[in-house]
Parts: sequence; C-alpha cells; structure tokens
Amino acid sequence: MASDPTGLHRVLDDRAVLPQAAARLETRRELWPDEVRIRVEKLNLDAASYRQLERTHAGQGDAIRAAVLDIVAARGKMQNPETGSGGMLVGVVEEVGPESPLGLAVGDRVATLVSLTLTPLVIEDGLRDWDGLSEQVPCDGYAVLFGRSIAAVIPEDLPRDLALSVMDVCGAPALTARVVKQYADPVVAVVGAAGKSGSLSLAAAREAGASRTVGVVPHEREAALLEDAGLADVVTVADARDPVALRDAVVAAGGPAHVTIVCVDVPGCEGGAILATAERGTVIFFSMATSFSAAALGAEGVAADVTMLVGNGYVPGHAAYAMDLLREHDGVRALFEGRHA
Amino acid sequence: MASDPTGLHRVLDDRAVLPQAAARLETRRELWPDEVRIRVEKLNLDAASYRQLERTHAGQGDAIRAAVLDIVAARGKMQNPETGSGGMLVGVVEEVGPESPLGLAVGDRVATLVSLTLTPLVIEDGLRDWDGLSEQVPCDGYAVLFGRSIAAVIPEDLPRDLALSVMDVCGAPALTARVVKQYADPVVAVVGAAGKSGSLSLAAAREAGASRTVGVVPHEREAALLEDAGLADVVTVADARDPVALRDAVVAAGGPAHVTIVCVDVPGCEGGAILATAERGTVIFFSMATSFSAAALGAEGVAADVTMLVGNGYVPGHAAYAMDLLREHDGVRALFEGRHA
Repeated sequence: MASDPTGLHRVLDDRAVLPQAAARLETRRELWPDEVRIRVEKLNLDAASYRQLERTHAGQGDAIRAAVLDIVAARGKMQNPETGSGGMLVGVVEEVGPESPLGLAVGDRVATLVSLTLTPLVIEDGLRDWDGLSEQVPCDGYAVLFGRSIAAVIPEDLPRDLALSVMDVCGAPALTARVVKQYADPVVAVVGAAGKSGSLSLAAAREAGASRTVGVVPHEREAALLEDAGLADVVTVADARDPVALRDAVVAAGGPAHVTIVCVDVPGCEGGAILATAERGTVIFFSMATSFSAAALGAEGVAADVTMLVGNGYVPGHAAYAMDLLREHDGVRALFEGRHA
Repeated sequence: MASDPTGLHRVLDDRAVLPQAAARLETRRELWPDEVRIRVEKLNLDAASYRQLERTHAGQGDAIRAAVLDIVAARGKMQNPETGSGGMLVGVVEEVGPESPLGLAVGDRVATLVSLTLTPLVIEDGLRDWDGLSEQVPCDGYAVLFGRSIAAVIPEDLPRDLALSVMDVCGAPALTARVVKQYADPVVAVVGAAGKSGSLSLAAAREAGASRTVGVVPHEREAALLEDAGLADVVTVADARDPVALRDAVVAAGGPAHVTIVCVDVPGCEGGAILATAERGTVIFFSMATSFSAAALGAEGVAADVTMLVGNGYVPGHAAYAMDLLREHDGVRALFEGRHA
C-alpha cells in the first residue's frame, strides 16, 4: 500500500477516515518513504484531556498513568476517547524516510505541531518516570510523522519544556492576530487570559492593533498574576460559564468585544462568549471543551449576528510567531514559567 | 423575578445558563411583560434529532412519539439529549405581553426562527395526530417567545409547510452569501446539496458570485434530482464521510473549493470538507452532527490553513432572503416540494 501525506495508509479502521478520526492506527516501526520516526522524550497532554482523566481517576497518579497506557495500547495513539483531544510531543529525529518533505535531519530535537490524536505512538517504558500528576509526561518510545505533518525544531535559546508549552498552543496567537487585524481599533476580550493560549492571545491581540484588551479570569489569584504580567488593559474576574456574568464583566471593562477569544478548558462557555461580543463581532473558540451545537444554537437563540470560528491549530508560521511573542513579552514568559514553577 | 430578553428568567437549573444550555425550562402559561405566547400547530424536528430517534426506536412510530413526549415533559422544551438539537415550530399568536419588542399581533400565523432547544413548550394533545414517522409533527399546545427571540410571519403566497421548511434552514443561505462575497469568483462546493439547506445554499452561492458551484450528493438518485433542479454547475456523487473520496470528487469537479458548505446530517464529514477546501478557503459547518474537536484537530492534522465557521442560524434578514430564493429558483422549490410529496 502506498503512503498518503495525510497518513491514511496507517488507519486500521474499516472505513476510510483520517488518522484523527480513526479508532486505531498502525504503529509499525518501519517507515513508509515519506515518513519520519521520532524517539519520544516527553508527551504534553491536552489540558482538557488531562483534567478528564484526573477527575475520572480521582487524582490517583497510578490510575491516570494506567489509563494513558491503556489508551495508547488500544488505539496506537494518545487520544482521550471522552474529550477527543490529545496533546503533542517532543523528541529527537531517529530516522527520515527518503521522500519526507518535512526538512528534518536525524538528531534534530523537535516538537510535533500536529495533535497526538493522529500520531502513531508506541510507549516502551511503561511511563515509569511519570507520577501521573501533571500533563507533562516523560516517556521513552517512538512516534511517526506523515508527509503533511508539522514539526518544529526546538529553539536553542529556550528551555525545552518552555518551548514545548508554547508550541502546544501556538495556533491561538497566530489566528487571533489574523482576526484582530480584520477590525479597526477593536476591543478584544480573552476568556481564560492567564493561561497559556490566553496570555499569548492577549499579546498577539495588542500587537495586531487592539485598542483595548480585556483579560477575563476566574478568580482573584489569577487576576493578580495577570495584572503583574501587564498584558491586558483591563483584568476582570468572572465565571465564564455564567453567560450573564461574563457579558456584564466584559461590558463593564469597555466592551462588548469586537473579538472574543475563548481559551478556557471548561464546558459551557459558548453562551457567555456570544453575549459578550458585539454585533458583527467574532468569537474564536480555542477550547476543546467547546460544543458545536451549543455555539450554533446559542447564537441563534439570542439573535446574535456574530461570526464563530473553530480555532484551527494550524496557521503558517505559528510556532515562530508564538516563540517571538514569548521572547518579546516578559509578561507572557512570566506566566508560562509560573506554570512550571 | 424580572424577565431577561434572553429568557434567563425561565431557566430552572441551579446554575445561570442560557435557556438553550438549560436542562429544564419553566413552562408557566402566564407571560412576563416582554414575552409572547404561541398556540402551536406544528413542530418541525431537526433532521439530526429525528434520525437519532428513528434509529434508537427502530423506526417504530409509537415509540418515537413517546420519546418526544417524554423529552418535552422532562425538559419543558424539545431538545434531543443525544444530538443537542431541536427544530422549530409554527403556530398562531395567542397573547402578546405589553412590553414585547417582536412586533407581533394576536392572530398572526408565525414560525419561530429560534430553536426549539430554548423555547418553553407544553404539548396538550399527546401528539395524537402524529404517526411518529416524519419530522413534521402536528401538535396542539403552547410555546413562549422571549424579548430577543425571532419569529417571522408566514407569507401568504406560500403553503404553510413549505414556508416552515424554508424557515427551518434559512440561516444557511444568508451566511453562505455573506462568505461567498468575501472571495473573488470562488468555486463553492455544497456537501449535501440536494437537501433543504444545501439547495438554498447553492442558489445563494450562485447569486453571491460563485464562478462555479459543485453539488455533492450521496447517491445517483439525489444526483438526478439535483441535475433536474439546475442549481449546480457540476453534480458529483461521493460519500462525505470518506475524506479522500470527497476531496477527489470536489477536485475533479473543478475544485478544491474556496468555500465548502457542509449541510449533511451525518457525523464524520469534517475531514473531507477540510481536504476539499483550498488554502485560505472557508468551510461552513451547518450540520448539527459536526464535532468541534474533529474539525479543529482535523485541520491541524493535515496542516490546512482554512477558516472554519460554526454555522450561525441567525443572520439579519435571513427568512425573507430564503423565501425570495425559493420564489426565484424553480429548482429550489422543486426540491423542497419533492420532500413533501
């Protein structure tokens, strides 16, 4: 069987589906000509996925570790069956197929910028170095990249874990910048603004011409962190799952917003984001906890003429742009480093 | 408790959520000052919802009817717990609160253009006139509209069921037209093109300046119907759940598409729609069977720089625009009337 740049040749399901939608992937070690094999050093689980595992297993590290091993053994990839989400990985290029278009060389330390949900993965160490208590998972094993995958070489001027954290969410600031530029002097609200994608999106919004940036956080502790970071013109505390509270908080901070960015990993934020957005404004949903029908019907239900975007994790140049934001904004770096402290 | 234009005052859940996200709504007959009560004549169930009920109950009409009655009794609204979707209704205005901004008068025959998923509803006849075998449900009962709801008076020159069918999907052609106008001479592919939202979207795309319209249908019978309707420059048969088949069909028909419109009510069409779309193109998802994470991760997984829109059912003027498309395009009318034949 010939390889396909999207990885179709490794799908084991009966129906022709893309690797992300597949129940199970072929994980054979031998490469097709356009593939690359990575020696995995670390997995970075998607936040929504990790939280679901943490809740289900009551925070018991051993049980969480066993659950991840089970998923990868059963599916040939790390895709949480409940959340549908995965994460990404870092590792070293082990072998490059003769027809690979990715421009990688053996020995490059890279992060994969395509999701773990579609990356063939074999764990070889039983995750013995992971306590199950954090979404960063030390791991020895291998993974396979396809012809149309994306991987970025990790910059030498940044610590590995920091670069990995940035790359994990690097689609958010790039898409934010693109959308913010479509408006003249817009008000931009970022919900979940002290998190990884949130802080990068705030910095991107300001660079892209926002006249006012509003950072929404769930409690005073995060508000203090975000105030210190200096990334938002206004920091406001609101429960994003409470539509009226979110609307009122954004309006009081100078809204409604022309662009609202949803970066919180909890379900039920669609209604508030829509109500916080001005007519003809845009909501970008980056959270994997977003419900398609809640968004579609929520906007219709309040007669809101807003554009709603599915946050695409790929924008050309996204990794380099996010790294630059981190280098240039001390506040972003402080928030990221605070998460690893 | 004062009323809120979004209907928050009728939410019975412990948390403050919008009516669409609520588990249960207050269905009291007495109106708040900005509300309107409708005497219901007919419900039009969302296609994805009806199909789920039909599958679950093996096509047994009595069981499907009982399931709908149970849902409405338990939730105070017709929202299928599995699909999250509802539908819409037609009826006659029974009472208008003194502060209602909707401009309706007692006796107006209207269709609600907000979803049944957020409309307080009481069924009073046990649905005795419905055999459970179609998504159009004769019904006696009442429903309540909020201050910010949308209802349109049914035009006198069109049969009621036809107008209802059009209004049910009228957001699709309006949003399609808006997006198509953002491109110069675009190729527009409509997946599920012989259906209600599909045929209207095809007509809208052509009026909005598409250089070529491609109608994708699942089998030859629908292809023949769509050919007869004359709405698409090219009609092509493909299984939309097979990403490679969909991509290849659209490319062979003159694509990839600058704008791809997904109107099929089956899960698993995200990957193919993304692959069928050109770089910097736009995919609009109107199907309630769309998975947010499949779309977000699917695009990332194949490094596709496409804009993905959640199909918002509300665009100002959408009902009138859709009615005009029906009046002006015999092919649209023929497809709609064929569905009721």
